[in-house]
Amino acid sequence: MSLDVKPVTESTGGIPFDVESIRGDFPILDRTVGQYPLAYLDSANSSQKPISVVETIDDHYLNHYANVARAMHLLGAEATEAYEGARARLARFVGAARAEEIIFTKNASEALNLCAHSVGSSLKPGDEVVISVMEHHSNIVPWQLACERTGATLRWFDVTPDGRLDLDKAAETNLINERTKIVSIAWVSNVLGTLNPVRRIADQAHAVGAIMIADGSQGVPQLPTSVEELGVDLLAFTGHKMVGPTGIGVLWGRYDLLASLPPFLGGGEMIEVVKMTGSTFAPPPHRFEAGTPPIVQAVGLGAAADYLDTIGMAAIADHEQAITGYALRELQQIDGLTVLGPTGLDDHGRPVDRGGAISFTLEGKYGPIHPHDVSQMLDARGVAVRGGHHCARPLHEAYGIQSSTRASFYLYTTTAEIDQLVDALTYTKKFFDK
Amino acid sequence: MSLDVKPVTESTGGIPFDVESIRGDFPILDRTVGQYPLAYLDSANSSQKPISVVETIDDHYLNHYANVARAMHLLGAEATEAYEGARARLARFVGAARAEEIIFTKNASEALNLCAHSVGSSLKPGDEVVISVMEHHSNIVPWQLACERTGATLRWFDVTPDGRLDLDKAAETNLINERTKIVSIAWVSNVLGTLNPVRRIADQAHAVGAIMIADGSQGVPQLPTSVEELGVDLLAFTGHKMVGPTGIGVLWGRYDLLASLPPFLGGGEMIEVVKMTGSTFAPPPHRFEAGTPPIVQAVGLGAAADYLDTIGMAAIADHEQAITGYALRELQQIDGLTVLGPTGLDDHGRPVDRGGAISFTLEGKYGPIHPHDVSQMLDARGVAVRGGHHCARPLHEAYGIQSSTRASFYLYTTTAEIDQLVDALTYTKKFFDK
Repeated sequence: MSLDVKPVTESTGGIPFDVESIRGDFPILDRTVGQYPLAYLDSANSSQKPISVVETIDDHYLNHYANVARAMHLLGAEATEAYEGARARLARFVGAARAEEIIFTKNASEALNLCAHSVGSSLKPGDEVVISVMEHHSNIVPWQLACERTGATLRWFDVTPDGRLDLDKAAETNLINERTKIVSIAWVSNVLGTLNPVRRIADQAHAVGAIMIADGSQGVPQLPTSVEELGVDLLAFTGHKMVGPTGIGVLWGRYDLLASLPPFLGGGEMIEVVKMTGSTFAPPPHRFEAGTPPIVQAVGLGAAADYLDTIGMAAIADHEQAITGYALRELQQIDGLTVLGPTGLDDHGRPVDRGGAISFTLEGKYGPIHPHDVSQMLDARGVAVRGGHHCARPLHEAYGIQSSTRASFYLYTTTAEIDQLVDALTYTKKFFDK
Repeated sequence: MSLDVKPVTESTGGIPFDVESIRGDFPILDRTVGQYPLAYLDSANSSQKPISVVETIDDHYLNHYANVARAMHLLGAEATEAYEGARARLARFVGAARAEEIIFTKNASEALNLCAHSVGSSLKPGDEVVISVMEHHSNIVPWQLACERTGATLRWFDVTPDGRLDLDKAAETNLINERTKIVSIAWVSNVLGTLNPVRRIADQAHAVGAIMIADGSQGVPQLPTSVEELGVDLLAFTGHKMVGPTGIGVLWGRYDLLASLPPFLGGGEMIEVVKMTGSTFAPPPHRFEAGTPPIVQAVGLGAAADYLDTIGMAAIADHEQAITGYALRELQQIDGLTVLGPTGLDDHGRPVDRGGAISFTLEGKYGPIHPHDVSQMLDARGVAVRGGHHCARPLHEAYGIQSSTRASFYLYTTTAEIDQLVDALTYTKKFFDK
């Protein structure tokens, strides 16, 4: 196979983007599976962690740890400074106007549930919430539950056969209208890779006075993020997909909006005054952070933001685009393989409005080869992918399938790993075609 | 000062309880504050972490990490085994009947909010929820919000002047009655140290058909825990107070009860089938774990349980009792110092029905010395305590005060640290009496 994707060398951090050097920061990528090197192509599920993030976590636990906010002693001050420093760091990472716009949650799901409870608490019968068929379950189920609680109606964008939001049908059916109170859409699809026109939809939502939420779980790790450019009111994302720890997610929100919302979880630190007969609540972000927060996870996520910004998010996005273009071309050489979602490439071989997750089906001589079989065959040859509905069952149903196999990439992914994937898929097909 | 507390040498794990050796596992305890050694007496706020817990976290991130449940590749299998292994480990730690009774949350507050939303969803006007005045805000605010949502009535146990639940008044006022649907009480008070008669209250709750919840945030780290002996239906606790990571809490629940409850947070992994028109939900524990869980934090908490069980929870409780008895005697020698909560000692110098948190006020020649001033003065002399309302404002109001200073102990606490506290308090009093 020709390797016509040049290593990306541009960078915003002054350090050339050298994939092999980056891989040296992730010891787990040196693992082998039997005789094969590990090809970890499951980063849309969760990314691996560089040594610097793990060392930051270590150092905090062993040398600076205490609870935050509540204690005025030396360690308490060090821990609070590190935790609030992480908040400011994440604010910079997404271009937030102020640190207080960053709420730390346990994951993106909690961030979206917070939205569904707090923003959703004012929903009434007749009101409408708009999502899309390509959402992750985390951006479907909380809204179903919110609509059940309030009597509001859930509506959604359909998808076109090529994996885009069906904007024409949405216009024809007046999907976003004066009854719409909330619109919540994935920035980048975790299955199709589709980059959705969030700004355009946000403008439509704002034109009818609705609040616009984006699920940035796949977008924030891959793309330079500016909440201002996205044009949304709230943005949920997660740490573990952006080389950060598990146990930490983020909800960014416009401060004025956050300040107008009721609390979600109740407990320590989110209060102003508690009496047995009733309580008042702290301003954002603390209003939304009940109990001891994921302190060391926030500190670790700050180190993850440092790591990504040192390489440069523009360079990371460029690498992801190059790898995705390479993978799209190579995968489509495989007889019987059908990519779900956008496949178009531009003159430079880069995918058009598309991120680095490629889901596909594989048709064998005797019928479809089940994604679980595919992923197990790949695993035996060192290639880690995900087989299933990827927490997006309605999307698969829209395509008339139960599940798919997904390969997904990140800053440490090499063309050699794509080649290993293609070889393993070719072997799998031969095996099942016997 | 006489050191009449002998080092505790009994153990359930076969390893003698040698405090100095244990301190070697916690490098942070070697820190100094200016010329003073650090005396970390803020463990009821959060405990420090042994090297073994931090190393387990490291090893998982650098060598075994992937997302759980969703991926069938090698790393996914290793991560899932570690995560579900931690669930089984925590089940053993609290004597649960099965691993599926352990739900991982982000902290104890989320666990209690889960109860307030899921158990609380069936509340109706006229129903009553019973808590106590000595609860942490995390066991007050969620119930206030639940009662606001449902129209149910919040009632509570008062406290006696010596820091016990006022059971007599509760009986006189028929506090727990046929309208009571939920009773939620702290096992051990985070301010007073009081060990509450949870079993007795659980029996009363069950007699009227109510569900009994205990907040075990202070109890589980200090005492051998058997959910069967406690007699409760649900038990919330947290990792960071039991030498585990931040970002992880636990809700234990009787399986049949959990299986009857509606979900709380919606998202990936908690579903059975998602359609745009509605969803069905997985059985416990996954029903209550939406999104990517705190994977590595659970694994770290498993290592914390290993660490504590190797020393032996009976030995840890015994040490805590000995240290608390020593501290109660020494602190009460200080002129003007008043301990909130139980102060009685048995014939062996051990406190009676009391855990290892001692909150107190300090009266100077010119009036009360503010706990913030006390804690700052102590900090300057290396002693880390907490000054404030300790997330238990109604309790302080019941005592007619705004705040207090709290010293709290754990398995690594020495009598020398108590002596350092007493010396620093004596200095503080002299300073303010000048």
